[in-house]
Amino acid sequence: MTDEAGGRTGAVVTAIRRKLAGGALMPGERLPSIRGFAATMGVSPSTVVEAYDRLAAEGLIRARPGSGFYVAGAVSPLALTEAEPRRERAIDPLWVSRQSLDAGPDMLKPGCGWLPVEWMPNGAIRRAVRGLARTGDALLTEYGAARGALSLRRHLVRRFAGEGIDASADQVLLAASGTQAIDLIGRFLLRPGDTVLVDDPCYFNFQALLRVHAVRIVGVPYTPAGPDLTAFAAALAEHRPRLYVTNSALHNPTGATLAPGTAHRLLTLAAAHDLTIVEDDIFADLEPEPSPRLAALDGLNRVIRIGSFSKTLSASIRCGFIVARPDWIEALVDLQVATSFGGPSPIAAELIAGTLADGSYRKHLDALRRRLSRARREAGGRLKALGIAPWIEPRGGFTLWCRLPEGCDAAALARAGLREGLVLAPGNVFSVSQTAAGFMRFNVAQMTDPRVYEALARAMAGSETPPASSP
Amino acid sequence: MTDEAGGRTGAVVTAIRRKLAGGALMPGERLPSIRGFAATMGVSPSTVVEAYDRLAAEGLIRARPGSGFYVAGAVSPLALTEAEPRRERAIDPLWVSRQSLDAGPDMLKPGCGWLPVEWMPNGAIRRAVRGLARTGDALLTEYGAARGALSLRRHLVRRFAGEGIDASADQVLLAASGTQAIDLIGRFLLRPGDTVLVDDPCYFNFQALLRVHAVRIVGVPYTPAGPDLTAFAAALAEHRPRLYVTNSALHNPTGATLAPGTAHRLLTLAAAHDLTIVEDDIFADLEPEPSPRLAALDGLNRVIRIGSFSKTLSASIRCGFIVARPDWIEALVDLQVATSFGGPSPIAAELIAGTLADGSYRKHLDALRRRLSRARREAGGRLKALGIAPWIEPRGGFTLWCRLPEGCDAAALARAGLREGLVLAPGNVFSVSQTAAGFMRFNVAQMTDPRVYEALARAMAGSETPPASSP
Repeated sequence: MTDEAGGRTGAVVTAIRRKLAGGALMPGERLPSIRGFAATMGVSPSTVVEAYDRLAAEGLIRARPGSGFYVAGAVSPLALTEAEPRRERAIDPLWVSRQSLDAGPDMLKPGCGWLPVEWMPNGAIRRAVRGLARTGDALLTEYGAARGALSLRRHLVRRFAGEGIDASADQVLLAASGTQAIDLIGRFLLRPGDTVLVDDPCYFNFQALLRVHAVRIVGVPYTPAGPDLTAFAAALAEHRPRLYVTNSALHNPTGATLAPGTAHRLLTLAAAHDLTIVEDDIFADLEPEPSPRLAALDGLNRVIRIGSFSKTLSASIRCGFIVARPDWIEALVDLQVATSFGGPSPIAAELIAGTLADGSYRKHLDALRRRLSRARREAGGRLKALGIAPWIEPRGGFTLWCRLPEGCDAAALARAGLREGLVLAPGNVFSVSQTAAGFMRFNVAQMTDPRVYEALARAMAGSETPPASSP
Repeated sequence: MTDEAGGRTGAVVTAIRRKLAGGALMPGERLPSIRGFAATMGVSPSTVVEAYDRLAAEGLIRARPGSGFYVAGAVSPLALTEAEPRRERAIDPLWVSRQSLDAGPDMLKPGCGWLPVEWMPNGAIRRAVRGLARTGDALLTEYGAARGALSLRRHLVRRFAGEGIDASADQVLLAASGTQAIDLIGRFLLRPGDTVLVDDPCYFNFQALLRVHAVRIVGVPYTPAGPDLTAFAAALAEHRPRLYVTNSALHNPTGATLAPGTAHRLLTLAAAHDLTIVEDDIFADLEPEPSPRLAALDGLNRVIRIGSFSKTLSASIRCGFIVARPDWIEALVDLQVATSFGGPSPIAAELIAGTLADGSYRKHLDALRRRLSRARREAGGRLKALGIAPWIEPRGGFTLWCRLPEGCDAAALARAGLREGLVLAPGNVFSVSQTAAGFMRFNVAQMTDPRVYEALARAMAGSETPPASSP
């Protein structure tokens, strides 16, 4: 389309818009005929067709084959507006997700679980998108292979080899996200009424997800070296759980890392009780150096490793993965076809593979680790000034699990935070035993704006329980 | 990076590759230091860093922060190859999907459920991809809104208004695919042991999906005007089903369309038995003119409408949708966050919205309908010459549900077809009652290559049961 034609087409579009706005054309009415309106406007019929097509693509008019164009049914402007997140909803494991995902642009989100846009490898992703525009048609329109794009699975196989995990491309299944990877595994291994162990505290969405599976969730207290092994052994004996879901490296929310000795004893206990483990190492790329991997120690016998690229590459390009025993993967492929007709978009896999293969990606990770290290130090100091104390100093990552000042309730503070424009992540959304009311998870990457601390201080003042009596 | 630097970098990359291939550098060994190798190669240290980064992005070497680059663990070439689809697997409702998705490039796929690449709106999609490359960083890296991109939901609201379905953007939830839309609804409404009605025959994946939900599946015979209402009423009385899953327009596999009177009586029966209906109108855009919609008649009271863009726009850009009562959508959003941490990629929604808004999209649909009409006529004629007779002449779409010649078993023919390079869709994968052994679903858009009919004739000859005695 030339600019001139665009100008003429634009004039026809504007003329019809005026008729619609002014009521000269009402819903259901037929638009002027193409030849007639072309004569009226002094343009060619093809210009009118072009204009009508644009208006049809916007949904304002509709074509009826063989009969011309008609004004579409009226849609109230209210029907087209976005819903506000519901502030009054219960503070449950879905609370942080829903408040974070639907937060308006003015909200500050120290409670959310991802990095700010400007911390992501935007240049490399944009190069991958430009590469996509030059790729073959099949990638843009066809379903992909049932296990997902081979190029990305090959990349993962090489990466796993570097971590000491020996797997073939056959043993890797791409999924639409890390969460969906765990969901598929749950559908494969769990039946309603089964028991699943999680860390206490653990990533809140493990609980939300496991509730959908109608299983009993048992929490094992988490220590700075991993799960409390005495409690873990007791839980195995008492509850005979089918599955344990955990993060080994940079545990969410605590930022702790599984110690080698704990990892070994955990696997010995798991073998003795025929326990399967899902190791969600979604934060692995943020570690300064690799820590022990259950999947590597175990050789993918009873450990299933999952992950995604949401934390270091892009959360918008939805793509996760599962690596597991070949027979389990075969069953998971069937499950994924039945429930999603395949895995992530082949386009998503291509964008991820393209970004990972960009020479800049390693530098991005290096820079990210350094930036996070500074941000942890800075946020830790500012939080201490407010009387908020980190539980440990994590080796990497962006979460700080913090104890609030005596008498400060995290849920009350989170509610007060919303009123001050803050999305916070109160402790008990992470805690199966609901024993973390005095804790809060902070995302240091979302706390470089000083307004976070001002709003937090106001929220703390606003959420204080008034003293029982004031003489 | 300038071309010259690329050439120098390339030389360093090649030199290291040779060392790796020749065994001069073994897995775990440290690579030459950057300064040292720069001197050896007569290039700058930054050129060596660039080369090492490229090799690291390929997974051949790994950086250890502060300690240099090391050769990555060896990965056997066999570990990087793709699995062949398993030919010997049982012909069940997953058979066609798995064979179609993983078919090699030389296979012909008259049994698959999608259009060939060259029938899709490739130009418009490519324009949308180029638009994506110019968009803001947030779209490329951040999670999207919990219900999915508002722009696409607004488009859908206008389209629904045109179909007589009155819904607001709040009532629309984007999902990763049409299949996943039904899966979410199943998780919301169904409990193990519930009964679900489907058409007999019905889209095979409805069965595969419902089996995952551990529900009892009851089939109701499908007539050229919709479900057999006497059998439907009897099934309601006998089984008290919770849900009915169907396609109203261009039913899969038969290509039939629900008649207005059948639609009305169906809804009356549903109301009397408190039945919820999922209306999967995934083929709606292929209709020559719109047929009755249960969702429009019912006003989204007990009907949930789902769909996707896989059949007319792209199957690679994974995106489906649900439109339903506001309270149900709110629950489905929670379920989708818990099980996938959100819906389709915001990038997918942007590509879909961009393509739909392209003025060429309506013309694409018009051309597609004309092309399909010709292809149905042509394939119908050629199939008849082989003794294969369409059950009805569909008004639109790409499926022909055909009766095979007397004594020809569809499953045996499908197995013989694989040996001849054909993926076929044998009748019983669509039939809950397993009464369609004499039927086959053909996709006319995948049958323009005359080799399809040659291979089909050979497969028919090869799958014939030998006569009991030959004098």
